[in-house]
Amino acid sequence: MAKEILFDFNNSLADIVGRDNGFSRTDIESMDGKISGAVSRIETIRKEGNPGFVKLPFSRDVASEINAFAESIRDNYENFVVLGIGGSALGNIALNTALTDPYKRKKGFPKLFVMDNIDPEIFSSLLEGIDLKKTVFNVITKSGGTSETMSQFLIIKSMLEKMYGEKYKEHIIATTDPEKGDLKAIAEEEGYKTFYIPQNVGGRFSVLSPVGLLSAAITGIDIHELLAGAEKMETRCRERNYFLNPAYMYAILHYILDVKKNKKISVMMPYSTKLRDIADWYRQLWAESLGKTRIVEGNSLFVGQTPVKALGATDQHSQVQLYVEGPNDKYFVFVGVKKFAKDIKIPTGFESKKSINYLSGHTMGELFHAEQKATTLALTKAKRPNSTIWLPEISENSIGQLLYMLELATAFAGYLLEIDPFNQPGVEEGKKLTYALMGRPGFEEKKAEIEKIDRPNPEYVI
Amino acid sequence: MAKEILFDFNNSLADIVGRDNGFSRTDIESMDGKISGAVSRIETIRKEGNPGFVKLPFSRDVASEINAFAESIRDNYENFVVLGIGGSALGNIALNTALTDPYKRKKGFPKLFVMDNIDPEIFSSLLEGIDLKKTVFNVITKSGGTSETMSQFLIIKSMLEKMYGEKYKEHIIATTDPEKGDLKAIAEEEGYKTFYIPQNVGGRFSVLSPVGLLSAAITGIDIHELLAGAEKMETRCRERNYFLNPAYMYAILHYILDVKKNKKISVMMPYSTKLRDIADWYRQLWAESLGKTRIVEGNSLFVGQTPVKALGATDQHSQVQLYVEGPNDKYFVFVGVKKFAKDIKIPTGFESKKSINYLSGHTMGELFHAEQKATTLALTKAKRPNSTIWLPEISENSIGQLLYMLELATAFAGYLLEIDPFNQPGVEEGKKLTYALMGRPGFEEKKAEIEKIDRPNPEYVI
Repeated sequence: MAKEILFDFNNSLADIVGRDNGFSRTDIESMDGKISGAVSRIETIRKEGNPGFVKLPFSRDVASEINAFAESIRDNYENFVVLGIGGSALGNIALNTALTDPYKRKKGFPKLFVMDNIDPEIFSSLLEGIDLKKTVFNVITKSGGTSETMSQFLIIKSMLEKMYGEKYKEHIIATTDPEKGDLKAIAEEEGYKTFYIPQNVGGRFSVLSPVGLLSAAITGIDIHELLAGAEKMETRCRERNYFLNPAYMYAILHYILDVKKNKKISVMMPYSTKLRDIADWYRQLWAESLGKTRIVEGNSLFVGQTPVKALGATDQHSQVQLYVEGPNDKYFVFVGVKKFAKDIKIPTGFESKKSINYLSGHTMGELFHAEQKATTLALTKAKRPNSTIWLPEISENSIGQLLYMLELATAFAGYLLEIDPFNQPGVEEGKKLTYALMGRPGFEEKKAEIEKIDRPNPEYVI
Repeated sequence: MAKEILFDFNNSLADIVGRDNGFSRTDIESMDGKISGAVSRIETIRKEGNPGFVKLPFSRDVASEINAFAESIRDNYENFVVLGIGGSALGNIALNTALTDPYKRKKGFPKLFVMDNIDPEIFSSLLEGIDLKKTVFNVITKSGGTSETMSQFLIIKSMLEKMYGEKYKEHIIATTDPEKGDLKAIAEEEGYKTFYIPQNVGGRFSVLSPVGLLSAAITGIDIHELLAGAEKMETRCRERNYFLNPAYMYAILHYILDVKKNKKISVMMPYSTKLRDIADWYRQLWAESLGKTRIVEGNSLFVGQTPVKALGATDQHSQVQLYVEGPNDKYFVFVGVKKFAKDIKIPTGFESKKSINYLSGHTMGELFHAEQKATTLALTKAKRPNSTIWLPEISENSIGQLLYMLELATAFAGYLLEIDPFNQPGVEEGKKLTYALMGRPGFEEKKAEIEKIDRPNPEYVI
C-alpha cells in the first residue's frame, strides 16, 4: 500500500519559536467557533459535491476515457502543446515537472510544451522549432474566450489549415465548459475532439479534471494512481479532530500566523527540483483564492498572504540570508522527499582538501537531506516559524495526496478568513481595460477613461 | 547607436496612488543627507574600483580572451554544463533565457545546462540523458569549496576519468578565485583550463565576470555588446542629480516605499518570458544584499524587502487578484519591451464570436502590450504603487544596461538602509549545521547541539 504524506508542524509552536512567531494551544482554542464553522462549510461542500473539486478524486470514469484517448493518439505525435494560461496551465506544468524525466524522455510518449503566455518572440520560436506535422494542440479555456488562449488558437488554426485543409482538425483538441462559451460552440461547429471541465470546478482547482489529466496521461503519467492519492487524502481529511487532519491544520496554522503573528508571506520551499512547479501551482491556488478585499462595516480589509516559491538547496544561496536575518514576516513550508528514486554516491578523491573530503562516501541524497535539516534548524534557531510536508517518495500517489491536501487547506483557510475562496473579482478591471485598449465593441467608455488617466509626466521618465 | 532603457516612476507618486502608498518631493528632500552619503559611498567605490563590480563593464580584455577560448572549443561539444549554485548559476541562466532561442538552437553552438541543485534524481537524469563525450563541464565556485558544487564535481570527475583516463581533463573547466581555495589548487594540480573571478567581486555581482560571460560566449551571445550596455549604464549613472539617475532613483523609491510606506515586498514582473530569469537573478541580488539584521543601540532591526518574481501576462491569471485586492504591501516593477524581435498577426476567423473577434487584425505583441498597460492601470487605480523599466528591445546591449542598473541600485539601497550590501553573514549557521550533519571534522560540538535541539514531538507530526 502506498504510504501517506506527513505534516510536521513542530517548528510552528510558540514553545519553539516564541509567542510572537508561533502558535499555542490557546491560540487555537480561542478560535474554536471559527474552526467549527469552517469544518461545517467543508462538510457541506462534500455533501453537495459543489464546488466540484471534492469529487474529482473519484472521477475514475473520466480518467479511463482520457487514458483510452491518450493511447489512441500517442503514437501519432511527438509533441503535445497546451494552449492555456493560469489554472489551465499550472497544473499541467506541475505534474509534468514532478512526474516525468526532464532530460531523458520516455520512448513512445510525446513531449509536453505549455504555452502559458503571449510573448510573440517565444511563440514564434516554438512554431519554428517544432515539427507541426507531429504536434497536437490542446486548447484549454473554461470560459471559452480567454484572450491569450484564443489569440494563440486563431494563429495555430490558421497555420494548420493552410497546411492540411480540413484535416487540420485532427491536430486540435478543445477542453472547455460543457455548456457555455465560444470555444464550446467552435469545437462543435468544427468537430474537434472535446473534453469537458465540470461547471462547478474553477481553474485553480482543476488539476485533477481533464485540464490536468489529459497532458499527464499523454506523457505517461499514471492518472488513476494520481486520483487514488487524492482520494486517500480526501478520506483522511474527513477527520473532524483537526489536530489529526493535515489540511485543516495547515490552514489553521497559516491563519494564526498570518492574522495573529503577522506572517504576511507564505514561502513554499521544496527540497526537490521536481517539486518546484508544484510550488508555482500552489502560488496561484493560495494567492487567487485568499487575496481578497473584505468589506467589514463599510471598511475595506485587505486579506491574503503573499505566496513565494523557493527551492532548496538552490535558494540557500539566494534567499536564506533574507529568511534568517531579514524581517520575521514569513511562514515557511518545506516539502521534503524521504526516499529518492535514484541516488548517487559521492566518490573519494582529493583527500587532502578539507573543504571537500568530508563529502566522500556520502550520497548526494544524504547531502540534500542534511542541507534541508540544516536550513530548518537555522531558521528555527532564528525564531522563524516553519513546518515540513514529507513525501514518502515522488510518485503519482504522493503527488495526488499533496495537491489535494493543499486544495482542501486553501478552501478551509478561505472560510477562516471569511472570504469566498472560489471567486476572483479583482481581475475583472484588468480584463475590461484590455478589451478597451484592443478596441472591443462595448468598451468605448473604458477607452475614454484610459485616455483621461494615462498621462505620464515626462519628468518622471528617466 | 543602441538605445537607452527608460525608468518610468509616475505611478509611484503620492499624487497618483495616495500619500500612504507613494512618494512626494518632501519625502525625498527629507532624506537629502542620507542620499548624499550614499552617493559619496558609490563614488568612493568607483574611485577605488572596490568592490570590483563597477569595473567589470570595462573588462574587455577578459571578454576577448573568453571569446577566443569559446571559439576554440565550441565545435567539439554539444553540451556545456555549468556546475554552480547561487551567484555561480543565476547569471548564466538569466543571460541564456534572455538572449538565446528556447526552441530553436543556433547551429554550431552548444546547449547550456545549469546544474544549480543537488537533487539526485535530476542529476542522474542529466548524466543518463546527455552524451558525456560531447559535453564540457564548467565548475564554478568562488570559495573553491562550495559543498553542492564540489560534490557534483567529484561525481563528474570520477565518471569522466573512468571513460577517458588522463584525457578526462579536457572536459573540465574551473572558474574560481585567482589565489585561494581548494578548486584553485586542484585545477593547478590537474591542469584544468581555469578562469578567474576577481577577488573583490562577490557571487551575486559576478554576472559580467567570467562566471556569466563564458557560458554566454559559448552559446553565441555577444559578450562585448553586453559589456558595452553595462558601460553605457555606468557612465549614465555617474549623474549626481538623482532625479536623472535611474539606478539611484530606483533605490531611493524602493527605500521610501519600504521604510516609510510599508511596502515590504518588491515584485518584479517582466512582460517578456525571456526576462523571467532576470527577475530570478534580481531576487538573489536584492534579497541577499539587503536582507540583514542591523544592530541599533543594542536592538536588532530586521531590514530588507522580500523580492518576488512574477511574469506578465501569465501571472495576471495567478497573482493579480492578490495584487489588486489583497494587502497593499508591495512595490511593483514592471519590465516592458518596446519592440519585439518577432511578432505574429492574429488572423481573422469566427467573426460571430464576440469574445474573440476583436483580437483579429491585431498582433500578439499588441495584445501583450495592451495587457501590460491594463495591469499597470488596474494596479494604479487600486492605489498600488508601481513603476516600469522599458527596454527598447531585448538585446545584449539592453540586457547589459538592465543588469548593471539593478546592481548599482542594490548597492545604493544598501547604503540607504545603512547595512553592508556585499556580505551574507546569515548563511554561515546553515553551512556549519550541514558540516556537522555530514560529519566534517571540527564540527563535533555543532553535531552535539543538533542532537539536543532536534527532537520533534510526534504529536505534531500528522
